[in-house]
Amino acid sequence: MDFAHSARARELIAQVREFVEQEIYPAETLHREQVEASGDPHHHPPVMEELKAKARAAGLWNLFLPDEEWGAGLSNLEYAPLAEWMGRSVIGSEPFNCNAPDTGNMEVLAQYGTREQQEQWLRPLLDGEIRSCFAMTEPDVASSDATNIRASIERDGDDYVLNGRKWWTTGAARKRCRLAIFMGKSNPEADTYRQQSMILVPLDTAGIEHVRNLQVFGFNEGEGHAEIQFTGVRVPADHLLQREGDGFAIAQGRLGPGRIHHCMRAIGMAERALELLCRRAAGRNAFGTELARQGVVREWIADARCELEQARLLVLKAAWMMDEVGNKEARKEIGMIKVVAPNTALRVLDRAIQLWGGAGVSQDTPMAQHWAHLRTLRLADGPDEVHRLQIARMELREQLANEPTDPVATALAPAHG
Amino acid sequence: MDFAHSARARELIAQVREFVEQEIYPAETLHREQVEASGDPHHHPPVMEELKAKARAAGLWNLFLPDEEWGAGLSNLEYAPLAEWMGRSVIGSEPFNCNAPDTGNMEVLAQYGTREQQEQWLRPLLDGEIRSCFAMTEPDVASSDATNIRASIERDGDDYVLNGRKWWTTGAARKRCRLAIFMGKSNPEADTYRQQSMILVPLDTAGIEHVRNLQVFGFNEGEGHAEIQFTGVRVPADHLLQREGDGFAIAQGRLGPGRIHHCMRAIGMAERALELLCRRAAGRNAFGTELARQGVVREWIADARCELEQARLLVLKAAWMMDEVGNKEARKEIGMIKVVAPNTALRVLDRAIQLWGGAGVSQDTPMAQHWAHLRTLRLADGPDEVHRLQIARMELREQLANEPTDPVATALAPAHG
Amino acid sequence: MDFAHSARARELIAQVREFVEQEIYPAETLHREQVEASGDPHHHPPVMEELKAKARAAGLWNLFLPDEEWGAGLSNLEYAPLAEWMGRSVIGSEPFNCNAPDTGNMEVLAQYGTREQQEQWLRPLLDGEIRSCFAMTEPDVASSDATNIRASIERDGDDYVLNGRKWWTTGAARKRCRLAIFMGKSNPEADTYRQQSMILVPLDTAGIEHVRNLQVFGFNEGEGHAEIQFTGVRVPADHLLQREGDGFAIAQGRLGPGRIHHCMRAIGMAERALELLCRRAAGRNAFGTELARQGVVREWIADARCELEQARLLVLKAAWMMDEVGNKEARKEIGMIKVVAPNTALRVLDRAIQLWGGAGVSQDTPMAQHWAHLRTLRLADGPDEVHRLQIARMELREQLANEPTDPVATALAPAHG
Amino acid sequence: MDFAHSARARELIAQVREFVEQEIYPAETLHREQVEASGDPHHHPPVMEELKAKARAAGLWNLFLPDEEWGAGLSNLEYAPLAEWMGRSVIGSEPFNCNAPDTGNMEVLAQYGTREQQEQWLRPLLDGEIRSCFAMTEPDVASSDATNIRASIERDGDDYVLNGRKWWTTGAARKRCRLAIFMGKSNPEADTYRQQSMILVPLDTAGIEHVRNLQVFGFNEGEGHAEIQFTGVRVPADHLLQREGDGFAIAQGRLGPGRIHHCMRAIGMAERALELLCRRAAGRNAFGTELARQGVVREWIADARCELEQARLLVLKAAWMMDEVGNKEARKEIGMIKVVAPNTALRVLDRAIQLWGGAGVSQDTPMAQHWAHLRTLRLADGPDEVHRLQIARMELREQLANEPTDPVATALAPAHG
Repeated sequence: MDFAHSARARELIAQVREFVEQEIYPAETLHREQVEASGDPHHHPPVMEELKAKARAAGLWNLFLPDEEWGAGLSNLEYAPLAEWMGRSVIGSEPFNCNAPDTGNMEVLAQYGTREQQEQWLRPLLDGEIRSCFAMTEPDVASSDATNIRASIERDGDDYVLNGRKWWTTGAARKRCRLAIFMGKSNPEADTYRQQSMILVPLDTAGIEHVRNLQVFGFNEGEGHAEIQFTGVRVPADHLLQREGDGFAIAQGRLGPGRIHHCMRAIGMAERALELLCRRAAGRNAFGTELARQGVVREWIADARCELEQARLLVLKAAWMMDEVGNKEARKEIGMIKVVAPNTALRVLDRAIQLWGGAGVSQDTPMAQHWAHLRTLRLADGPDEVHRLQIARMELREQLANEPTDPVATALAPAHG
Repeated sequence: MDFAHSARARELIAQVREFVEQEIYPAETLHREQVEASGDPHHHPPVMEELKAKARAAGLWNLFLPDEEWGAGLSNLEYAPLAEWMGRSVIGSEPFNCNAPDTGNMEVLAQYGTREQQEQWLRPLLDGEIRSCFAMTEPDVASSDATNIRASIERDGDDYVLNGRKWWTTGAARKRCRLAIFMGKSNPEADTYRQQSMILVPLDTAGIEHVRNLQVFGFNEGEGHAEIQFTGVRVPADHLLQREGDGFAIAQGRLGPGRIHHCMRAIGMAERALELLCRRAAGRNAFGTELARQGVVREWIADARCELEQARLLVLKAAWMMDEVGNKEARKEIGMIKVVAPNTALRVLDRAIQLWGGAGVSQDTPMAQHWAHLRTLRLADGPDEVHRLQIARMELREQLANEPTDPVATALAPAHG
Repeated sequence: MDFAHSARARELIAQVREFVEQEIYPAETLHREQVEASGDPHHHPPVMEELKAKARAAGLWNLFLPDEEWGAGLSNLEYAPLAEWMGRSVIGSEPFNCNAPDTGNMEVLAQYGTREQQEQWLRPLLDGEIRSCFAMTEPDVASSDATNIRASIERDGDDYVLNGRKWWTTGAARKRCRLAIFMGKSNPEADTYRQQSMILVPLDTAGIEHVRNLQVFGFNEGEGHAEIQFTGVRVPADHLLQREGDGFAIAQGRLGPGRIHHCMRAIGMAERALELLCRRAAGRNAFGTELARQGVVREWIADARCELEQARLLVLKAAWMMDEVGNKEARKEIGMIKVVAPNTALRVLDRAIQLWGGAGVSQDTPMAQHWAHLRTLRLADGPDEVHRLQIARMELREQLANEPTDPVATALAPAHG
Repeated sequence: MDFAHSARARELIAQVREFVEQEIYPAETLHREQVEASGDPHHHPPVMEELKAKARAAGLWNLFLPDEEWGAGLSNLEYAPLAEWMGRSVIGSEPFNCNAPDTGNMEVLAQYGTREQQEQWLRPLLDGEIRSCFAMTEPDVASSDATNIRASIERDGDDYVLNGRKWWTTGAARKRCRLAIFMGKSNPEADTYRQQSMILVPLDTAGIEHVRNLQVFGFNEGEGHAEIQFTGVRVPADHLLQREGDGFAIAQGRLGPGRIHHCMRAIGMAERALELLCRRAAGRNAFGTELARQGVVREWIADARCELEQARLLVLKAAWMMDEVGNKEARKEIGMIKVVAPNTALRVLDRAIQLWGGAGVSQDTPMAQHWAHLRTLRLADGPDEVHRLQIARMELREQLANEPTDPVATALAPAHG
């Protein structure tokens, strides 16, 4: 295991950090004011375009994309600390064109798209001109079990016809959102993991109804989480990604890097909270003592540092494994960070909120919104419990692969079976 | 300890329960729609007036007020289960005219107001015609330490002049809110707990600036949490509650019953979440098994029941002690429930949210809003940590009041001191 | 719910408390020394007989037995606080002839024994002349599932012949132990809960081999936990308790009161630990501050008091329900305290051990031994997990007994099923 | 950060692993039987000498010692995985002559001893012929604060005279123990961290009284934890380590590598427990289902794997930092692993014990003893709380070293100070 960074990566870390601290932090208030003034919580404010222009000019653009032709060609391990810095702000990823779900969609297009699909959709996405969404989760089933999916993709002549209801279609509430990657069952009679397909759907296609936007603990998140009804939506057959039945495999491939991004952003949110916790503790008294000198607060700080350090190392290990042995071999570690990072970050956030009191739960700090986002991460891409089950299954398989050498196990196993 | 209820109390429990289940639950959606349609999150919608009329007609009105002249004359123990039922809905208390902070303000007026103050303010509050707020917390100091308060109440001729900034002034965002009970220092040179006074301030008095409303995890709660600037606000001297220097004592007296209300409502929110958890678990499958049959979900249910049952018993004990030996003697128990009830309820809510997935964090269920409210309760009236310190101080005092009879303590204490 | 105690019960509490503090605490060291000097960890030392004589003379004898003919005739609610005081010392129950497993065995004999069985075994047990053990748990199966039991009780002429291996047969390591109540399958073809029988076995019967004693975290507990092999053990048919097939029902009936005893003793251990924690905290400095003034220690104290108060109330509720509506109706509460009380007590003990440092884990305080005992309680009579499953099953049944009135549940249930 | 191992280290890991699994596991029972048969829990049984001979012959000897002249010359990072494997067994370190506290004592002698001191004591220790102890902790003070030490080392002519009481002097209960490294105050008037000295004391010197051995949760650990009275113990002046006043610095230097050893052994104990948990879960049914298929058990396994993986990475990082930048720069990480590793391991052990039921708390598995040892580790070298305070102090210092760039911090800090 070697987590050392190349010279290029170290330089990028310094640049992204400086950009976040010098450009993005100070723009947060203006961003909120511009959105509020628009009356639309999903408004794309001018300040964001200014930030994007600056970041792109500085060469900090599309860093997430490992593809060397289309993107920066960084490894997962190299990109991880950049994602951590971007994660420190609710508006910290989009200036670099590195925000979800567009990153995952661009990866899918770069990896699985035809040249035509790439020219039509990937190029404007990489240029930050349009946005996209990913229509997979459904309200009526436990979508963490992909075999539950009910939406249909049916061949009809030269077209596919799509039907189904999706929700938590992140990104779809934005006016600039033009494309949905839609997952549905095209071959319901095929083997379990060959029933699903993915297809590209322009959002202005007839039959798409934007039902409503979902709140997250009262927040209308900027990118928007939409509920969308697809009724007889007809798209040309060449919009399919790869071939019929490839949907599940593409979804799996999309997950790995996204997990690293989400988890490192979670750690970034927690690091910012820890910094805010320390600064507030140092500047406030209660009952005659500075908060930073009170034992309970010091325990919070120590525990936060211990937990964050461990979580980050685990994410780095997962990233390193993905780079070295591939997503498939790294899937236990990818599952582990999905559980560990958001939960760790939530604990850190909760302590920081507690110290900040009323300001912590309000719009005066980024912590309540970060908390709400992280709480939702415990559900997105499958709840913690599903990932724990899979980790356990892999662990059991490895543990039981060989006969025990421990007499405690050998002696008792048969007798007590 | 006798937690048995009188026949009258048992009948009221049944009536309030029926009203919550038959009238309030079904009105929640309409209430939200009417508020949203108004464009003002603090709008008072017609459906609320209809619910109030029904509840009052049914005799379910002002049940919170122990004063027999002005209110229902119930003991804390008798009112507790009613508060639990009202707590099940975000809009569950106001139909009964039992919502905070008006309840606490009405108690203060009933107990400490002059007949003139009562006629002017208590009567319309009891009639549900106007609303009130309580201006105590300040943004610039740790208000859990009441001696930190900076707002001033200065005598000037026949008037008092008020200056200071308050926030988390709950209720002030509503148009119907007419009265603030304002806490400030009138006698900064007096003994620590005789420096504060409370005074009644009509909200249309010159010099009161409504700065903004505070969000709670993205929610603009209906009653509104305002930040208010008081600049040279002049009110007649007879608006003072009791005498100069009585402010701290009145604030203390206001706390006890309010704690019971808040804690029982917290348990009500948790009970509703547990019911929703069970119902969802029984109606949904994942990985081939009904959620209600999965061991992890069953552990959540069992733990929730164990924790809720304990928390409720502790609140009932505190209520019983307040009734039997008074708030002062019950202050350890009052501190304990302040810590226990919101934290217990938050754990139950978190599990229910997890089971409900995307619906749990969104506006489709009451759970996210209840969670946000409960999280804030861990800070209101002093953060958990302040209450724990006070509980510990009382516990230590009791434990050390007598010489130890335990040789383990006597033998080691001197040797190892 | 009425937890108030009768005048008689209040007097007994005062007497037992005084006896524990004045007689038993000071005898702990001598007891340990006498046992150590004997070279047998299961030795019955003279000081115990002296304590028994004193307690009996004071009328504090067999208080556990609700049967008015044979015992004190106290209700579960009345006996609970006595058990708490007895639980404060490892040697705190036997002086009152109230120690497990003899208490449970005496209850079984009083309730289900014939007059002859009672004269032969119950009388000397009630006189404290002999001890008994309960041979139910087996090493080779998960005994928490009673249907797993493999030991056999086969009729052969006028005798029953017993075969099987038992362990955790508490009490059997003592020389004064004369009787085992043995559980086995007499009717393996019968309905699941009619296969088991219980029979009285004199320990000097041929075919009983005492294999070894089991340690509990390094402790050889005084009463001893034996592994015993029964091979062709032959006892007269009239030694059977009740009739063939009654074993499961008798075992169930035995459980309820024993749970109250165990749980209240657990709370007693925790209360002593909390007292020791407070006394040590008040008498020791680190880094220039008295431990009792350090915030972290105060949090421990506050949390311990909050948790203990809740756990005790829950046990009292369970006891009150057993008295009022019977063990069967109280079985959810009986399950809940089985989970709650030992876990709560373990948390309190752990904090006290941490504060006492090296003395806390050693023989210098009773805490390590209490901890080990409580940790084992989480396994005895079924592990926590089994009880949680049963609590959840009962909770689900109650919650789902009626149609939901909550539109959140009704609306979503069908759509998302 | 580069955690990759050299070829030599990888080979050693494989060899040590094989030795533990093939030689040490099977010897555990014989070891216990030989000790029990001797009647002395601190007996040194023949099987241990056989294991030592085999390990030494295989070149697996003194691997802990980074000194290339006297030892194996491995870095902390290289030794860490070896310590993990040794930690899997209670008797797993001594066969390699790598057991505490001799390892720490040998390091001190190698680093700070004169050539004469090394010839007299280090050589036979490295040969495994004698054992040593470390007399630092005192019963009457909170020894985690080294300035509290009361034992004295006074110059008297050509000798030093030692007085004081020590306890938890690990290793002193063994007959082969010949040497104590004694810490006391030689210069009570000097600066706080220059008051202490360390001196070598042959255990057969007059004035040394072995008072008693301390149990750890009922266990008499093999090496023994002694309480020792030093009364006028006279040793020649050349027995001093380094110079007067160097004691504190030597103690600090001794800590770092010891922490890595303790923490990796803790992880080894937890890994063995996790393996035993998995094997038992796969071989046992309850309520009709294999335990390994029950959701709750799977959550235990997943959580254990997640926690262990994180803890190990953190220890490796601390080891790597000690190798790269030295103990002083790594002291935050060294503090962090001291808190994290034992607590993590205790959680894993607790779950494994729960699954193993009665066997888990008894002598039938190594888990109860490992648990007791790990619980004590939370106190040894300072309780968790002391380390947390120090971690927090360092974290605060780093966080506050620069002006905040975050407007949330800058804006609020002055206003709310």
